[in-house]
Amino acid sequence: MKHSCGARVLVLPAPVWCIGTYDDGGVPNVMTVAWGGICCSEPPCVTVSMRKATYTYDFLMARQAYTVNVPSVRFMKEADFFGIATGREVNKFEAAGLTPVKGEFVDAPYIQEFPMILECKVIHVHEIGLHTQFIGEILDVKVDESCLGEKGMPDMDLLQPFVFAPGFRAYYKAGGLLGRAFSIGRSFGKSKKE
Amino acid sequence: MKHSCGARVLVLPAPVWCIGTYDDGGVPNVMTVAWGGICCSEPPCVTVSMRKATYTYDFLMARQAYTVNVPSVRFMKEADFFGIATGREVNKFEAAGLTPVKGEFVDAPYIQEFPMILECKVIHVHEIGLHTQFIGEILDVKVDESCLGEKGMPDMDLLQPFVFAPGFRAYYKAGGLLGRAFSIGRSFGKSKKE
Repeated sequence: MKHSCGARVLVLPAPVWCIGTYDDGGVPNVMTVAWGGICCSEPPCVTVSMRKATYTYDFLMARQAYTVNVPSVRFMKEADFFGIATGREVNKFEAAGLTPVKGEFVDAPYIQEFPMILECKVIHVHEIGLHTQFIGEILDVKVDESCLGEKGMPDMDLLQPFVFAPGFRAYYKAGGLLGRAFSIGRSFGKSKKE
Repeated sequence: MKHSCGARVLVLPAPVWCIGTYDDGGVPNVMTVAWGGICCSEPPCVTVSMRKATYTYDFLMARQAYTVNVPSVRFMKEADFFGIATGREVNKFEAAGLTPVKGEFVDAPYIQEFPMILECKVIHVHEIGLHTQFIGEILDVKVDESCLGEKGMPDMDLLQPFVFAPGFRAYYKAGGLLGRAFSIGRSFGKSKKE
């Protein structure tokens, strides 16, 4: 039996990503978002959404650049802090004791200690409502060597990211290999159309 | 030490969602995507991206409606199958033995057996490149009563969704409560700006 929760942003799971930008004084800032996802393979693009009221918004509009910093579980408290505090009042990098590094391809800082970094150039901005959507072309993906698995690809179980549950407003583990995509579903018999 | 993986859609984690639409003959179809995420809180919106070459694309454009069906781990093979097969050749609902139900709010079918359903009306279509992005306003969220936890919210550990790792092309568990958002990060001392 299904229960209606109404018209709400309740979908599982959501990612937890920390968005790096420089403010108007060139100070590195970082803000955590869960409203985002990959949105195109070619060019490779990721989308993140934020409210106009955030400190990050103006700098994203001004510099048209950001980094996506994927935290591992060991940085969960830092990531949560980056979603609570505002760069208007606090230097979040200093408060968390993390190291900003200037992006190699874009005018935005990344977090040296985080295991996975995307450098993104904004190519589209869409006003949707309370949130504005920034579509960033991924110019480079950097991954800690210790988190690379087969074929040099980032390994979920080594990288240990985590996910967010809207509604519950809680963080959960992401990891534990279940099966190979484009493979385990082949067992279904085909019911040909007539 | 960080390794550059280049300009690729490698970000962790990605969701696994099955998108329900009616084809031009009114036959229910479903296609699995990992390129998507929440993109606005008010109006509540979710975005999914797909290639023009997919069978679903034309029907999404025609009916401007879709459902997001969140599979639990027990439907992982079905979800994988929905990403391999094409509705041009196969009636996927019949082949997987799942039940299509007409949406209550939109002209799209949902999967009765899946634990979480979003009914979405397309409000924006953005051409990005290989993929087109469909922004859907969430008109209703339906959750199996057995998956509701505190405050009537969907519980990740009861619902048991899973995530996708691009690059590795594999599915992983999502679950195991780690901590409360907007709470565990409060322990950081504030380093006030001067």
